[in-house]
Amino acid sequence: MERILRVNMADRTARFEPVPSSYKNRAGRWLTSSIVHDEVPATCHPLGPNNKVVFSPGIVTGTPAPTSSRISVGGKSPLTGGIKEANSGTGWGRRLARLGIRALVVEGQPQDDRFWLLKVDAKGAAFESADALTGKKLSDVVPAIAARFGGKDHVDVCSIGIAGEKRMGAAGICFTDREGRPTRYAGRGGLGAVLGSKGLKAIVVDDSGAADVPIADKATFDIGRKKLAAALGEHAITKPKGALNTYGTAVLVNILNEAGGLPTRNFREGRFEGATKIAGEAIFAGNKERLGRELYNHPCSPGCIIACSNTWHRPDGSEHTSCIEYESDWAFGADCGISNLDQIAELNLLCNEYGLDTIEIGGTLAVAAEGGLWTFGDGKRAIELVHEIGKATPLGRILGNGAVVTGRAFGVARVPHVKGQSMPAYEPRAVKGIGMTYAVSTMGADHTSGYTIAPEILGVSGKLDPLDSKKTELARNFQYATGFIDTTGHCLFIAFAILDIASGFEGVVEECAGVLGTKWTMDDVARVGKEVLDLELDFNRKAGFTAVDDRLPEFMSHEPLPPHNTVWDVADSEIDKVFAKK
Amino acid sequence: MERILRVNMADRTARFEPVPSSYKNRAGRWLTSSIVHDEVPATCHPLGPNNKVVFSPGIVTGTPAPTSSRISVGGKSPLTGGIKEANSGTGWGRRLARLGIRALVVEGQPQDDRFWLLKVDAKGAAFESADALTGKKLSDVVPAIAARFGGKDHVDVCSIGIAGEKRMGAAGICFTDREGRPTRYAGRGGLGAVLGSKGLKAIVVDDSGAADVPIADKATFDIGRKKLAAALGEHAITKPKGALNTYGTAVLVNILNEAGGLPTRNFREGRFEGATKIAGEAIFAGNKERLGRELYNHPCSPGCIIACSNTWHRPDGSEHTSCIEYESDWAFGADCGISNLDQIAELNLLCNEYGLDTIEIGGTLAVAAEGGLWTFGDGKRAIELVHEIGKATPLGRILGNGAVVTGRAFGVARVPHVKGQSMPAYEPRAVKGIGMTYAVSTMGADHTSGYTIAPEILGVSGKLDPLDSKKTELARNFQYATGFIDTTGHCLFIAFAILDIASGFEGVVEECAGVLGTKWTMDDVARVGKEVLDLELDFNRKAGFTAVDDRLPEFMSHEPLPPHNTVWDVADSEIDKVFAKK
Repeated sequence: MERILRVNMADRTARFEPVPSSYKNRAGRWLTSSIVHDEVPATCHPLGPNNKVVFSPGIVTGTPAPTSSRISVGGKSPLTGGIKEANSGTGWGRRLARLGIRALVVEGQPQDDRFWLLKVDAKGAAFESADALTGKKLSDVVPAIAARFGGKDHVDVCSIGIAGEKRMGAAGICFTDREGRPTRYAGRGGLGAVLGSKGLKAIVVDDSGAADVPIADKATFDIGRKKLAAALGEHAITKPKGALNTYGTAVLVNILNEAGGLPTRNFREGRFEGATKIAGEAIFAGNKERLGRELYNHPCSPGCIIACSNTWHRPDGSEHTSCIEYESDWAFGADCGISNLDQIAELNLLCNEYGLDTIEIGGTLAVAAEGGLWTFGDGKRAIELVHEIGKATPLGRILGNGAVVTGRAFGVARVPHVKGQSMPAYEPRAVKGIGMTYAVSTMGADHTSGYTIAPEILGVSGKLDPLDSKKTELARNFQYATGFIDTTGHCLFIAFAILDIASGFEGVVEECAGVLGTKWTMDDVARVGKEVLDLELDFNRKAGFTAVDDRLPEFMSHEPLPPHNTVWDVADSEIDKVFAKK
Repeated sequence: MERILRVNMADRTARFEPVPSSYKNRAGRWLTSSIVHDEVPATCHPLGPNNKVVFSPGIVTGTPAPTSSRISVGGKSPLTGGIKEANSGTGWGRRLARLGIRALVVEGQPQDDRFWLLKVDAKGAAFESADALTGKKLSDVVPAIAARFGGKDHVDVCSIGIAGEKRMGAAGICFTDREGRPTRYAGRGGLGAVLGSKGLKAIVVDDSGAADVPIADKATFDIGRKKLAAALGEHAITKPKGALNTYGTAVLVNILNEAGGLPTRNFREGRFEGATKIAGEAIFAGNKERLGRELYNHPCSPGCIIACSNTWHRPDGSEHTSCIEYESDWAFGADCGISNLDQIAELNLLCNEYGLDTIEIGGTLAVAAEGGLWTFGDGKRAIELVHEIGKATPLGRILGNGAVVTGRAFGVARVPHVKGQSMPAYEPRAVKGIGMTYAVSTMGADHTSGYTIAPEILGVSGKLDPLDSKKTELARNFQYATGFIDTTGHCLFIAFAILDIASGFEGVVEECAGVLGTKWTMDDVARVGKEVLDLELDFNRKAGFTAVDDRLPEFMSHEPLPPHNTVWDVADSEIDKVFAKK
């Protein structure tokens, strides 16, 4: 009895609908991209009445499948003007799945500027005023909301911060982590601004009394679940006290720096002299020193056995922020020329408080430095600048709208972005496959669209030369595989294990087949992934995107990047082969 | 012996080249669009090293042809991302033509932030530092430059203001008028920012000692010149003490208001209750009262016999600003809800001082009002806001980058623009042909691309129903004819006369044939116009534009406009027929 919950913010009505048969077996990214593709006019204004925000838990979300509590969020992006799916680990989607809600669709637009809270539980959906919750830091609001509705053991909270309320393009959508902290984000692409444009401040989900997520073929599911769990428990990256559990994703800082692919000071260099001071190893060592004990990482969401989410602690041992992901660490660290972890932690915290995408904001600060607004490395000034966003001053509104708007405002031509979205923490001139992925991704510059860093840098699923330009097949295959994984509800980090351990990947397919009662095999991975990408590519084509939008910024083609002193030299014709564009 | 002067700002070198035979007979917009099409990579960053700014006087500019002192300026627009041609009346282009310079191409980019002045005369081209000229109002700089180089009888000055120096998207390129005032603009599309990105603050042209512009067939030229002069002298709109000479272009305020097509308060209404207070008639009456005599308008440039350029005077009779064009009057008046001519004059003056496009800035202020930044009608606050641009504060940088960036910054979805350029003073829902022109123009929303207002509102060349949606042929034909007129060097305002008086149009063709020594007939008008448009359309296609970019803002399709309560209802398929797009 799975349903779609459709919420109209024009008149604040909510109704349940059956899932159409055409959406059979679709969930997570496959379903958000299907609904956005089918219901949102591709040329609509992202902040106008015709855009929608669609939430969908993955196929196995809410089941005992390990590391599967992802929630996909879709819509037309105010940052890129194209389709967007961003996903987050949180108990929120798990509770939605347990309520039998396959998708929550937020549509329409109120005529006034009021804000609302939506409560969803086994009895239905109800609104209450959220005006008193606006203009505040998320840590001042979200735990209080959770407490009022029964506490973190009963509810999870989805919310936007000040950035979303003010409809800024870098506004993410925040979810509570396993401890009820407002720290997990469907961060990219500005979907927080879309929720803001609809006057929806928060969505509380309470799954009390809900039955378990039905599993059609429990035996097959259990076989798959165990295979996946075994692979995750065994692989050096994902196992307990392995790389991610010990150092978090920031373990990548030293690795990318060594590879010359750590973009530094607005992508002017590929190595950062302060890398070791901000690396995952430094976070581990710093916490150990300040806490007097070794601190391993924690799961961001229920059922995760990788547990890569870190915390950073102040000199007095109190918690400063969670989580300093590699990309956030890089964005405020290397890309801003800042090598002080306490300052990076503060910048990370402020993004969590104001509801901002750390990658976009780090990239934006770097562009602003290039524009003369501040000096690379001046962490105190960077912190002041992010506070401007929280105060929604004119300067804050520039920065809060991301790198491209900031480049426009300050006349900067060197803006590292694709399709309006800031480039993440991997330098295309030094790692060609990720550059192709940035170029063609339906999401704008996005490493999670197809994490070719795995083979190009980490040697996962074989080792490729990062400087080799022949990555067409790689970029395509990784995006298809990712379209599938983002549909399952699993965290993308399972890929490290399942790309190396074939039985783990089989296990994921068996989990899905078990839940859905299908006969899916490994052949269905690329099929589902291709269907997801085809929907997204079609939306973007209708929105006006052409092959010209599948290009890296011009400066990367004529500015050699130290230390390899390579330029972006992948032929446009090769890029266009990834998805057969003309 | 016509030449191209090519200036490289990377190393501040200048060289003369012969005009390639492929550019034979090309001048004005035809030549700027040819050079931009052929030399500027369509996907380059508008503020990066690969964009160029191309100046070209028209075919008959510098000859005794009446009303022909236009200079075309081309480049890739920072506002639209497409090709741009903006033109202005000024003696500057006339002097360039007399020096035998068919085009001046500014290319390259310096590595530092210094600014330069380029002096062009019969001896060649030379640079000097302009650092001391930056950060100032244009009236504090331009007359002093002219004086230093021999005065307004010997030189004209092209310059950018603070907006261009700061590379703002609404920065125009300013030229001196016949009195040496820095008041005439190639305003639209942000080409001032491109000059700014190249560190070129001013270009002084001195034509002392130059020979007259050669005319291959003087007899034919003279026949044509006389026919055109007769038509201009006879037509009610263009004759001495006719509509334009008496009331200026602002004579349109009451006419468009009556037609319900005067966009009011960010295109929410089609009539403005304060229209009569800001109309051309009110300007004439106000000047008469303050000066104690009737003041007719003056030519903006040498040889103009229409003489539509007005001045507005303060209560003490001193000159406040020149010129309050209809579009500027509307932009700060009806579109901002301001009905005080002194405030409108001050806003107009400030744009001239800071080097800004009045249409873009008026449209931007209206969007900012919609975003809650100020209240429609509060002229004092509007003036303060334009001063923010002059001070280049963060707020000023938002506003100075135009309506789309301002909409992004303040989360406004109702932004009246096409391809990133603010919509001018004619409401598409009330005048469908101009809406089609905005939609398909290669320039973004631009009334000068094809002034269908002539038949739709003014009854020039017949009278069409403005609400009739069948305007495909009209939009195409007017754009071709305009492509031709913009190539001749004539002011577009000759169209009022020559569309009604066939001999006048013949005269324009004969003037061109006389100068060039060709056998051009009336058949060449559409041929040349089509060649111009085809070049521009091809550039834009390569820059990534598709039919999706040929659309009016979404809100116009679902928001009825008073008083006719009509929406934009022209089918996309009809729009796409104008230039046969798929």
